[in-house]
Amino acid sequence: MSDGKRALIVGAGAGLSASVARKLADRGWRVELSARNTDKLAGLAGEIDAGVHACDASDPAAVARLFETLDADGAPDFVLFNPSNRVRGPVTEIAPADVLKALEISAFGGFLVAQQAARRMIDAGGGAIFFTGASASVKGYPNSSSFAMNKFALRGLAQSLARELQPKNIHITHFVIDGGIAADHRDGRQNTADAPDRFLEPDAIAETYIAVLDQRRSAWTWEVALRPWVETF
Amino acid sequence: MSDGKRALIVGAGAGLSASVARKLADRGWRVELSARNTDKLAGLAGEIDAGVHACDASDPAAVARLFETLDADGAPDFVLFNPSNRVRGPVTEIAPADVLKALEISAFGGFLVAQQAARRMIDAGGGAIFFTGASASVKGYPNSSSFAMNKFALRGLAQSLARELQPKNIHITHFVIDGGIAADHRDGRQNTADAPDRFLEPDAIAETYIAVLDQRRSAWTWEVALRPWVETF
Amino acid sequence: MSDGKRALIVGAGAGLSASVARKLADRGWRVELSARNTDKLAGLAGEIDAGVHACDASDPAAVARLFETLDADGAPDFVLFNPSNRVRGPVTEIAPADVLKALEISAFGGFLVAQQAARRMIDAGGGAIFFTGASASVKGYPNSSSFAMNKFALRGLAQSLARELQPKNIHITHFVIDGGIAADHRDGRQNTADAPDRFLEPDAIAETYIAVLDQRRSAWTWEVALRPWVETF
Amino acid sequence: MSDGKRALIVGAGAGLSASVARKLADRGWRVELSARNTDKLAGLAGEIDAGVHACDASDPAAVARLFETLDADGAPDFVLFNPSNRVRGPVTEIAPADVLKALEISAFGGFLVAQQAARRMIDAGGGAIFFTGASASVKGYPNSSSFAMNKFALRGLAQSLARELQPKNIHITHFVIDGGIAADHRDGRQNTADAPDRFLEPDAIAETYIAVLDQRRSAWTWEVALRPWVETF
Repeated sequence: MSDGKRALIVGAGAGLSASVARKLADRGWRVELSARNTDKLAGLAGEIDAGVHACDASDPAAVARLFETLDADGAPDFVLFNPSNRVRGPVTEIAPADVLKALEISAFGGFLVAQQAARRMIDAGGGAIFFTGASASVKGYPNSSSFAMNKFALRGLAQSLARELQPKNIHITHFVIDGGIAADHRDGRQNTADAPDRFLEPDAIAETYIAVLDQRRSAWTWEVALRPWVETF
Repeated sequence: MSDGKRALIVGAGAGLSASVARKLADRGWRVELSARNTDKLAGLAGEIDAGVHACDASDPAAVARLFETLDADGAPDFVLFNPSNRVRGPVTEIAPADVLKALEISAFGGFLVAQQAARRMIDAGGGAIFFTGASASVKGYPNSSSFAMNKFALRGLAQSLARELQPKNIHITHFVIDGGIAADHRDGRQNTADAPDRFLEPDAIAETYIAVLDQRRSAWTWEVALRPWVETF
Repeated sequence: MSDGKRALIVGAGAGLSASVARKLADRGWRVELSARNTDKLAGLAGEIDAGVHACDASDPAAVARLFETLDADGAPDFVLFNPSNRVRGPVTEIAPADVLKALEISAFGGFLVAQQAARRMIDAGGGAIFFTGASASVKGYPNSSSFAMNKFALRGLAQSLARELQPKNIHITHFVIDGGIAADHRDGRQNTADAPDRFLEPDAIAETYIAVLDQRRSAWTWEVALRPWVETF
Repeated sequence: MSDGKRALIVGAGAGLSASVARKLADRGWRVELSARNTDKLAGLAGEIDAGVHACDASDPAAVARLFETLDADGAPDFVLFNPSNRVRGPVTEIAPADVLKALEISAFGGFLVAQQAARRMIDAGGGAIFFTGASASVKGYPNSSSFAMNKFALRGLAQSLARELQPKNIHITHFVIDGGIAADHRDGRQNTADAPDRFLEPDAIAETYIAVLDQRRSAWTWEVALRPWVETF
């Protein structure tokens, strides 16, 4: 039983975005998943009957096509921007081409997605656009100049859009994920009985995304930072 | 049907705290309401079968007695600190005695309540302590030096306690209520069909308090700012 | 050779305030030193021919008398508020009476001094009021709830006064001293040749205080954080 | 009479950077001026006998060549990064190509210049790199999503570099110019006797740049916000 609502998750993967996608599907939402490499999405898409779209979020034409593909069914009610590309290393050593590419994916891509979403949501009378940030969104760490640049940029974009679009009934929220995510397959962090809940569980993060999506517009938040109970900050 | 959980709301009144109290009661929680003047609490207390306690939150002995009164039933699971006392006016004109009294109620009172709550929650293995702030918690406005001092202080307290107590399984959250609250009887702000949702609805705020209370400890937030969709910030 | 300018340093001691006092005296300023205990001020006062005043900055009448004592020579051009009282320990263990006393000295005292200074500077057409903060002014550390409360409060006061009084030609600045001060006699921190400049030199801090005092009003700053080159933050 | 020190100002123009250049030249520093269009620099260069370099700061090869050109005389002691490119308008209307170009100039360019400067200053044992920001560096305004993205990014870069390079004796500072600059020829803002000092005077800003450059490393600041006395914030 659907209430006819639709979500688009850009930069979808197996962790947080899968948790959000399942929670939306449980409510009867139609979910569209977008990623540069869609191989990893087949399982999730089958499980929740989601659409799958290959899209490089840093390519203006590709992002425009992604949204056009979905237009037959109307504006998305909710768009989540997740892509992030991290270049690690001392400022003296990282390659300019990598730094620029990361900036295009993590920051410019957020602009491209927000622009397409905003055009449709303004016409539709409302919606929600969420951005996923990191500790580096609010704190520039050593040997992380590229990542700090990208994540600060995405936060600046989100804050500007919150001021610009919220009075147009589009809820903008930026999430600062301030800790390691559990079951993140890139490095295998797992919570254990001996050290419980020291990594953020994707489902626990997703619960707050959904709670913020449910906020009524008389009491919106534009930013939430989440971290494990034992995380120093 | 109770799940045996208990909440204490300090500085309880007819607005936000009543909304929070009703939502907790709906879940089967036992609610204890505390205020300096308890006359205004009779209706709410009858409605949700809550306990009512007269207590000056700036008085160490009175706060200690309040918690001792509740000790027979064990540690509270959740304590909400709401009291706030605002002295308005140019720094050159406001009375030192008023400024000191407001500091004792709004900041020192928060310390007293947190101290009593923390002692019990540490012994009990966990809990949650929330603090209600305002726009002035993060921005010092002109002609608001007293209020800025108090609300910054309460935020500093909450941030320190988040770092100190969260690893002891006590969830600390500070809420920045960044706008006018609707149906606030002090000045009669009401949302209208012509200007919908321009004031924060107490029930809408309370929904986020409850969502944060429901957060799992692998993904806690220590601060949330809430404001109406049309609020400039 | 004096240019007739006068400074009042409240909470004067042997470290930072002595450095500031000497730099002002070198320029020909008349300096007034105030502290609860004036024994430690005799050497400095003799060296720079400064006035010495015993004053409990948390006592409204005493602060009023301090300023009245100086009124014969006109409004001070510059007032520096330094007092700070730190209560250390877990929130569950620190004594409420100590917490309140520290709040009165570190925060309420700042209000009292600012109030007296502002009244005179508004009449005189301008001036400068500076406040000395700490790392705890912007970050609430564990086991530091009292200090966080006090230093956040003082910062909120300073920020509100910056917005209120700068358009009246009174320069307000809050300094975040984010590291250990060298030659601080309380704990004997000293810079060494092997680990040079890891503690803030009082003279180095004072140079920035004076540079900010020299700022022209078309380009004022209201806050500066200072820390050693090797300090993590 | 030179003390042999050398500065490179990237994004040099007629306002703030000219004021900084003159103050350095007054101290006997050799100044190198870089800009995409060097026509406007002829007057200043003649006045202070500065070097002039045409360089697109968003081009990795061009930035590398700029620094190589200067290598014969050793590492610069001070590098100032000023370039900024503003795209104005609603997020729905601004052109992606313009947004990307602005990001390359204002943020990526800052990285390129910092990388070249850091390599040389680390070898030389120290130096200073300053970045010029704006109100948009810390506040995302409506219809300013592109600019917010760029200026937040530059601030994140500067903050990361402060943590990474300050322990290598390289002073990093980010300046938030929070108001209109006087005598800015793009829009002709001028201070008047009737409304004195409501725009930031370039010389007044430059005085603080120089004061920060003079800071001793036991008491460095990594960020300073400057605004006129009558500016709301």
